Amino acid sequence: MIEILQDNIRIVLVNPSHPGNVGAVARAMKNMGLKQLYLVSPEDFPNEYAFARASGADDVLADAVVVESVEKAIAPCQWIFGTSARSRMLAWPVKNPRECAQFITKNLPAKVAILFGRESRGLTNEELACCHYHIHIPTDEKFSSLNLAAAVQVLTYELRMAALESINKVTGESNIEREDPLANAMQMDGFYSHLQKVMMDLDFLDPKQPKLLMRRLQRLFNRAHLDEVEVNILRGLLSSIERKLI
Amino acid sequence: MIEILQDNIRIVLVNPSHPGNVGAVARAMKNMGLKQLYLVSPEDFPNEYAFARASGADDVLADAVVVESVEKAIAPCQWIFGTSARSRMLAWPVKNPRECAQFITKNLPAKVAILFGRESRGLTNEELACCHYHIHIPTDEKFSSLNLAAAVQVLTYELRMAALESINKVTGESNIEREDPLANAMQMDGFYSHLQKVMMDLDFLDPKQPKLLMRRLQRLFNRAHLDEVEVNILRGLLSSIERKLI
Repeated sequence: MIEILQDNIRIVLVNPSHPGNVGAVARAMKNMGLKQLYLVSPEDFPNEYAFARASGADDVLADAVVVESVEKAIAPCQWIFGTSARSRMLAWPVKNPRECAQFITKNLPAKVAILFGRESRGLTNEELACCHYHIHIPTDEKFSSLNLAAAVQVLTYELRMAALESINKVTGESNIEREDPLANAMQMDGFYSHLQKVMMDLDFLDPKQPKLLMRRLQRLFNRAHLDEVEVNILRGLLSSIERKLI
Repeated sequence: MIEILQDNIRIVLVNPSHPGNVGAVARAMKNMGLKQLYLVSPEDFPNEYAFARASGADDVLADAVVVESVEKAIAPCQWIFGTSARSRMLAWPVKNPRECAQFITKNLPAKVAILFGRESRGLTNEELACCHYHIHIPTDEKFSSLNLAAAVQVLTYELRMAALESINKVTGESNIEREDPLANAMQMDGFYSHLQKVMMDLDFLDPKQPKLLMRRLQRLFNRAHLDEVEVNILRGLLSSIERKLI
């Protein structure tokens, strides 16, 4: 079970600014048996200080994958989670770290990405809109901003606890049996771009406010957990509209 | 309940060497609503770097009580817990952080101390012997040494979760609070009829086999639990297609 966690879960840090935090994240991950670290445009990496704070999790840092966009970091993933201090947008399905970890272990093997935002201001609304679920760590409302590595520590700890619990479990709830593999982030992104284009062609999308409606639709379709066949059906429908518009 | 935690639980750091860790501990505590920090013969405190890493938990640091012995730090406490990476002594009753937190919240109000050892080598056997229970955080055996603040973060997080659970206030799961009422069966039916008609107009629906595709789409949209506004958006989209087809 622990190996399945390692092979399927990636921790994605979006624009981390302090190399010390990146090192501390690597340490937290390795403590809890995770390995896959993705860094989206880190401000200062690699950096000696990251290795110092990693305290021996050098392998996690050395294997960290640096990419220039969130899309690249999550492309093959089927479940996307994003940590969020508070809801600053459309209400989105929220899980606390324990619920998130239990959900993930129940749905493994599936490719999972957990996004952590910038130290200063978290994830953008656009990044949060990629997510199936937001994760809220139940901090004190009056002092809610966790250190980046502390947030990763809580999540990876819960993942390990859930994995250890599931090993000891004789029976488990079964998930919905899906016939077809869940769509990954790249496929969903392709669908949303296609949808947006067709809605523009239809003059249905207000060009002054395209994002609001797109977010509502992303929320709707993310909630449905589309599989690959469904994405193909919906894109086929979109193409059939395009053909009629020509 | 949260106030009872605050008033009754003290976090005791035994000989912490790095002021940065002390600051990060203060931040972790305040994030989770705890206040009472005891420092047993810290190597370097107070120190500016501690305040920097506290990121606003200055009050916890300023109120920290410095004492010269573990005995003084725990004197009035009724339950003593000590974190331990591994058992290096006589087998002792061990709890994981969750069990520990549940035990504590069940036994409140009672004065509780949780001891955290030196960064380099944890608690001595003598210090561990003061404890009613040892706490073992279930890290990877091959890389088990947690950062001091990370260990405090996990424990204080579990305490807060246990306290919130006991008052049913854990945030999360899983159903979003819906802003808008869920669509009823009549509205869904109207949407599906509309969708079927437009797909026919688009020649997207095979007239010989209309039901197969319709069922797939119903399954998809039913899974998303549409609300009334979402149904209206989707029907608006369908109408915009109809207008272009005329």
